[in-house]
Amino acid sequence: MRTCITLLLFCLAAAGQNLNSPAGQWMSVMKLFDERLYARLQLDVTGNKLTGKLGDDTLEGILNQGRIDGTAKLNGQRTVHFQDTLAKDRIEGTAQVDGQPNELKWEATRAPSRNSTPETHKFEPMQFQHFFSDAIEPVLHINIGDTVATWSVDAGGTDPRGVRRTSGGNPLTGPFYIEGAVPGDTLVVRFGRIRLNRDSAISSPLISSNALNPRYVEQRKRVEGYNSDWRLDLQRGYAVLAKPTETMKDYKVPLEPMLGCVGVAPPGEMQYRSGFLGSFGGNMDYNQLREGTTVYLPVYVPGALLFVGDGHAAQGAGELTGNALETSMDIDFTVNIVAGGAPPSPRMENTEYLMASGIAGSIDDALREATTNLVRWLETMYGLNAAEVSSVLGTSMVYDVAEVVDPQPHVVAKVPKAALSALKKHDH
Amino acid sequence: MRTCITLLLFCLAAAGQNLNSPAGQWMSVMKLFDERLYARLQLDVTGNKLTGKLGDDTLEGILNQGRIDGTAKLNGQRTVHFQDTLAKDRIEGTAQVDGQPNELKWEATRAPSRNSTPETHKFEPMQFQHFFSDAIEPVLHINIGDTVATWSVDAGGTDPRGVRRTSGGNPLTGPFYIEGAVPGDTLVVRFGRIRLNRDSAISSPLISSNALNPRYVEQRKRVEGYNSDWRLDLQRGYAVLAKPTETMKDYKVPLEPMLGCVGVAPPGEMQYRSGFLGSFGGNMDYNQLREGTTVYLPVYVPGALLFVGDGHAAQGAGELTGNALETSMDIDFTVNIVAGGAPPSPRMENTEYLMASGIAGSIDDALREATTNLVRWLETMYGLNAAEVSSVLGTSMVYDVAEVVDPQPHVVAKVPKAALSALKKHDH
Amino acid sequence: MRTCITLLLFCLAAAGQNLNSPAGQWMSVMKLFDERLYARLQLDVTGNKLTGKLGDDTLEGILNQGRIDGTAKLNGQRTVHFQDTLAKDRIEGTAQVDGQPNELKWEATRAPSRNSTPETHKFEPMQFQHFFSDAIEPVLHINIGDTVATWSVDAGGTDPRGVRRTSGGNPLTGPFYIEGAVPGDTLVVRFGRIRLNRDSAISSPLISSNALNPRYVEQRKRVEGYNSDWRLDLQRGYAVLAKPTETMKDYKVPLEPMLGCVGVAPPGEMQYRSGFLGSFGGNMDYNQLREGTTVYLPVYVPGALLFVGDGHAAQGAGELTGNALETSMDIDFTVNIVAGGAPPSPRMENTEYLMASGIAGSIDDALREATTNLVRWLETMYGLNAAEVSSVLGTSMVYDVAEVVDPQPHVVAKVPKAALSALKKHDH
Amino acid sequence: MRTCITLLLFCLAAAGQNLNSPAGQWMSVMKLFDERLYARLQLDVTGNKLTGKLGDDTLEGILNQGRIDGTAKLNGQRTVHFQDTLAKDRIEGTAQVDGQPNELKWEATRAPSRNSTPETHKFEPMQFQHFFSDAIEPVLHINIGDTVATWSVDAGGTDPRGVRRTSGGNPLTGPFYIEGAVPGDTLVVRFGRIRLNRDSAISSPLISSNALNPRYVEQRKRVEGYNSDWRLDLQRGYAVLAKPTETMKDYKVPLEPMLGCVGVAPPGEMQYRSGFLGSFGGNMDYNQLREGTTVYLPVYVPGALLFVGDGHAAQGAGELTGNALETSMDIDFTVNIVAGGAPPSPRMENTEYLMASGIAGSIDDALREATTNLVRWLETMYGLNAAEVSSVLGTSMVYDVAEVVDPQPHVVAKVPKAALSALKKHDH
Repeated sequence: MRTCITLLLFCLAAAGQNLNSPAGQWMSVMKLFDERLYARLQLDVTGNKLTGKLGDDTLEGILNQGRIDGTAKLNGQRTVHFQDTLAKDRIEGTAQVDGQPNELKWEATRAPSRNSTPETHKFEPMQFQHFFSDAIEPVLHINIGDTVATWSVDAGGTDPRGVRRTSGGNPLTGPFYIEGAVPGDTLVVRFGRIRLNRDSAISSPLISSNALNPRYVEQRKRVEGYNSDWRLDLQRGYAVLAKPTETMKDYKVPLEPMLGCVGVAPPGEMQYRSGFLGSFGGNMDYNQLREGTTVYLPVYVPGALLFVGDGHAAQGAGELTGNALETSMDIDFTVNIVAGGAPPSPRMENTEYLMASGIAGSIDDALREATTNLVRWLETMYGLNAAEVSSVLGTSMVYDVAEVVDPQPHVVAKVPKAALSALKKHDH
Repeated sequence: MRTCITLLLFCLAAAGQNLNSPAGQWMSVMKLFDERLYARLQLDVTGNKLTGKLGDDTLEGILNQGRIDGTAKLNGQRTVHFQDTLAKDRIEGTAQVDGQPNELKWEATRAPSRNSTPETHKFEPMQFQHFFSDAIEPVLHINIGDTVATWSVDAGGTDPRGVRRTSGGNPLTGPFYIEGAVPGDTLVVRFGRIRLNRDSAISSPLISSNALNPRYVEQRKRVEGYNSDWRLDLQRGYAVLAKPTETMKDYKVPLEPMLGCVGVAPPGEMQYRSGFLGSFGGNMDYNQLREGTTVYLPVYVPGALLFVGDGHAAQGAGELTGNALETSMDIDFTVNIVAGGAPPSPRMENTEYLMASGIAGSIDDALREATTNLVRWLETMYGLNAAEVSSVLGTSMVYDVAEVVDPQPHVVAKVPKAALSALKKHDH
Repeated sequence: MRTCITLLLFCLAAAGQNLNSPAGQWMSVMKLFDERLYARLQLDVTGNKLTGKLGDDTLEGILNQGRIDGTAKLNGQRTVHFQDTLAKDRIEGTAQVDGQPNELKWEATRAPSRNSTPETHKFEPMQFQHFFSDAIEPVLHINIGDTVATWSVDAGGTDPRGVRRTSGGNPLTGPFYIEGAVPGDTLVVRFGRIRLNRDSAISSPLISSNALNPRYVEQRKRVEGYNSDWRLDLQRGYAVLAKPTETMKDYKVPLEPMLGCVGVAPPGEMQYRSGFLGSFGGNMDYNQLREGTTVYLPVYVPGALLFVGDGHAAQGAGELTGNALETSMDIDFTVNIVAGGAPPSPRMENTEYLMASGIAGSIDDALREATTNLVRWLETMYGLNAAEVSSVLGTSMVYDVAEVVDPQPHVVAKVPKAALSALKKHDH
Repeated sequence: MRTCITLLLFCLAAAGQNLNSPAGQWMSVMKLFDERLYARLQLDVTGNKLTGKLGDDTLEGILNQGRIDGTAKLNGQRTVHFQDTLAKDRIEGTAQVDGQPNELKWEATRAPSRNSTPETHKFEPMQFQHFFSDAIEPVLHINIGDTVATWSVDAGGTDPRGVRRTSGGNPLTGPFYIEGAVPGDTLVVRFGRIRLNRDSAISSPLISSNALNPRYVEQRKRVEGYNSDWRLDLQRGYAVLAKPTETMKDYKVPLEPMLGCVGVAPPGEMQYRSGFLGSFGGNMDYNQLREGTTVYLPVYVPGALLFVGDGHAAQGAGELTGNALETSMDIDFTVNIVAGGAPPSPRMENTEYLMASGIAGSIDDALREATTNLVRWLETMYGLNAAEVSSVLGTSMVYDVAEVVDPQPHVVAKVPKAALSALKKHDH
């Protein structure tokens, strides 16, 4: 049977007494067997009348002695009847979707208030993760607006001082739990600093065979003893091969530090090794994910659980050799949350471009996902119809092939902000 | 950085006292940080001299007072030096790979003896799994040669009596722990029985948009109110739509019961929802996986952890509508283990064909994997060179497109056993 | 700019005097610069009133002194005004599409009557074609219902007696001009005989690198001096390697003669070498195209221009080694024409299956085209809606991968006729 | 049978009398049935001894009474024996490849001398081509170093004054015959001018369905009456929609004139409509093919036959809407020939980048071809081995997705010249 993880958000609502009004913001979760279905819940109280929104759906009910009887339409379609009891910051009860035999367990918790003063957390990682997963305990809880200043080991597990700290495969720093992030939200991560912190990087000697035509691969002559370590000259801003062949002795690469891995806990309790990527981000290996870039990620679990790592001193398109110039990295980032609007795949922004990722099983499919991700973004942001967005992207779009050697290829569709400057942002 | 889960098997060996000889079969595991590297270990003792094999590598050492000093070549290349202490059925110690700074922790446990009498276990599932994962506790430990007689709910979680037992998405029966299965081995599962046990199946109404050309998709007229439930006539051996349109009222489908899901715990502690598939098998949705079929799966974790489920009363190629005729199923299977020889992806066998799976991000890539999987199988089984295997497959091979709607397409390359009958099996 | 060869059929009609009535069937052609737009034209006369059909569009006009003034809607949308003069079996004039500045030249010729007695033509080929193209002079004109008995050289140009007759690359027998075939029609070719006529075949030694995974390709050991010639034992019905290695000395392949190439002149005056394939058929290399098979091809030029060739004594799926068992072949076929209904790509039929081809740039796309081709066929033939055709194909469809080594892959979607037996053919 | 157009160059040589020495440069052609096999031939004479090169192969022979007896190795492997007669600027004779039964006809003509003074030809096109084909008569013969100043109609056939001149589908200006271009050579075309010459462009309203994910396509809302004509403001350097919706009224596109079509006659006498692309170039639709760009194309037929057309005022990556801003264009180009070294697919160069095209049936395959094309270019130009070229491209390469809506996708792999500045060009 086909996988269907789009957890139908059949969620619902609650009630309160005078001392303890249910009015306000909640995170709602419905449980059907071991599936958990999350949504933001907003409740308003007028006398004993209860109104509100459950995700994008309208909810109505009656408050009575700390209990409610209510109904909501799931996705505007199926009706849910619910009965609940209200404790201080917690609602507990049951719900019944019409036409479904099984009663659901239901629970809601107060959303944290947002008016805390932003803090900067200096975080020294002591352990490193090898998975994008919601099964890993957060290393730090942070609030909306907070900044984290930390660092990451290189893809092989070696730290800024050259000490091997863990096994290889893109060990990650994190996860960071963002208070108030509800599944369905958009996590906003702005990278204020992505800076090199040592003078060496390692790489791999050969272009991956899946990026070349098979006839070339069949006849390619292997080169014995080639050393693909690099020396990073942080002062002058370039890298050179540490032990170059005669031919390569003057070859220089400008340093353009970037992060290969930025991701959240994947949907559906999936657990991916840190070399994987998907709608949750992950090992995206996009060489425009540099200092100054803002990344928008879908939130799949409460707190989002943000992981970062896999610093590259420089990387060509596609990460052709499987390893870029792999090195440890200093990283500062600041988080924010947009309620709802979770993108279908990561989106990014810098001073010049809006960028939308497509990650899929082939480059053809990844490009289709990327185009669609950007189309939907502009449709929403500027209220464009299908023809208008076609005129804009048909004239202004650029594709970047971020990654072709990882388990899934990654294509980015991007549009210059200059091209969009004449359009009016949509109120919605 | 590119994912590299092929855990380099740098493993090794141990020692013994006179009363407690280390001679025999062991499962060895080396630990580098939180990575675990498994291998079969065979030890022979002559006086205080120790010889043996660690995976495919030769090992040599000296026994001294219950301790050993030894060396092995990893993959015939890098030397490991080790020092270990022997307890009764357990070896513990350390190892040092030359050129690597970090010392490894090492441990080995006795492989179970194989001479137990095969048993048949009647297993009544009470809970159902939604993941292929090694993090799930086995529901039953079984021995090589044992048979399990059990059943599975349908893809939506409903049992043979029509009771919803769990949430949907291909809930699985299992996992079954097979004693003696070591990572790198081949798990052999013969399905003695895959039988229908109720008279209803559910399906979906439309061919998936990714199996059609986009111009057709763009203009396809949706059909309102179409009912795609099926009634199964177990006596007469066919299915009919439960509430057919006038046009479809006589349309019949022969019942050909099969399992959509057969898989083991994936490599590298990955956790996939039960709708996924990969080298570990999983939701393969291949309509030739019927009663009488033997499935060969790679073992990635001790005990393999076998999961089964997702019964289909019938299914066309590609599982075009996303759901086949989904129903609960009675299942009997018998397990065996071949030491080593883990296939790169599942292989299958019935009376007529050898079948090799390819599972990848596109049909093009899945076909390449399937061809290669079958090529390697025949090269090993019959000692064929690249030209000989080409003459055989160029004249006899058949492709089946098993699945095009799941997260990864699945193509099967198969060859009739009749074509192979004139070839001599290779001794190796 | 995107290619748009779908020649918008803006065609139209004519008139007649009493002695020389325009009533009847015509082939109409409109010329815009050097583009030619064909359609079937049917004219009926009542007094001086003219009615009829131009392709699927309705036409109306007035007859006056051997001239007409008339109008038709192109594709039911744009109006064409036309003025024409009628000669005996020829109409000549002009047409003006509303909204288009350029006047079109117009001409129609009488369609041949169909009531000739079918003939059998014994055709001895003296020259061989290396292209699918409408620029090649027909070698024979035949009528609907006629049979041609002929033969083809092998893919390298060698005839049944072992004489090299032309250069290699699938030399073709033909083209045959079918009287009465109008662009937009369906050419029906039934192969009554596809028979071996010599005792040798040649092949190639290695599976094509694009059908294997690149890591395997990179490490594959080349085999020196392997001979991939085959000896055909026509009496016993199998092939063996002519000079087998020890390992392959008993390997036998059942003879299942087929044609690799069946095609018509491509659309838009394209000229493809005989190793190419496309919507016009061509080098389809499908091992079910055997004696007894009927092939349905779209007609793109007057007379269709049918080519046949590339006999294979046997071939596995995908024609993995680039050459099957290439040999010369005796071929008998009988032609028919269905007015209109040109399929988007070839279709085939034998006693067991309806088969629909998909030919595209990747296997993924070819499979999408094949599924869609079969969907459209069943929708038309049985009047099925999108859900009904999904129920049928979701339960009964089979994919064959015909060809993976030619310039374009070829996938076939097929459905057993047995599955369709309960459906009623649609009157339309 | 698989297509094999790689015309095995079994070519060879000739002789002369004292008055009329054969020494010098020739174009050789061998004929096997209707196949023609071209090569450059260089002959040197010492007494009655003849030496030289046929393509890359060495040739030896004896001159005797205006006839020669000689031998060459084809591709360094098979021996050819030849006998020929020398006329003034023509050699005629026969050749026999060892092991091949058929005698070949042979002929050679003097290569034109290169020391003509470059000319500029002002060429006013009167007819327009709809094919890339060697069957079309050249409109002009030009010499190496010559410049042609001409113009092209837009993709629909309309000229700079708004007059429809021919039918649509990218009508081409040309073909131009370049004297001295021999199959196997590299044609070098530098575009000195690609300039707009009118104030209007047409486009299409919707992103092509194959560039979007099929679920989006299925639900996309069509927009009625959207006008996708553009007005070009040549003074200010931007385009605006001619009749914009309210939302789009201020949307501007910078004018960046480019040519969609630059190509030569395809190999093997193939004839492609002008919307097609391939190793011969053609409808490449790459938005970096602007004024100042040099294009390198493989020569497949004597004189190469160069076609240009399909001007775009601006185009986003992928030409998403199927039509860019289609307009007529003024075009100046200068030609040169490099003997041999025909690239596998087009290459380009501007002040910043070396660019290598990959054109194939899927984006995945096109990217593999592009990477390989660039790899081979750098290997040859700088004498890099497989590891060195990997270090360079792994750090510096950029992919552009030129085209996703034409019959074949087009991907460009490019590398900044700045990155290559430290490498030394290879003498070869």
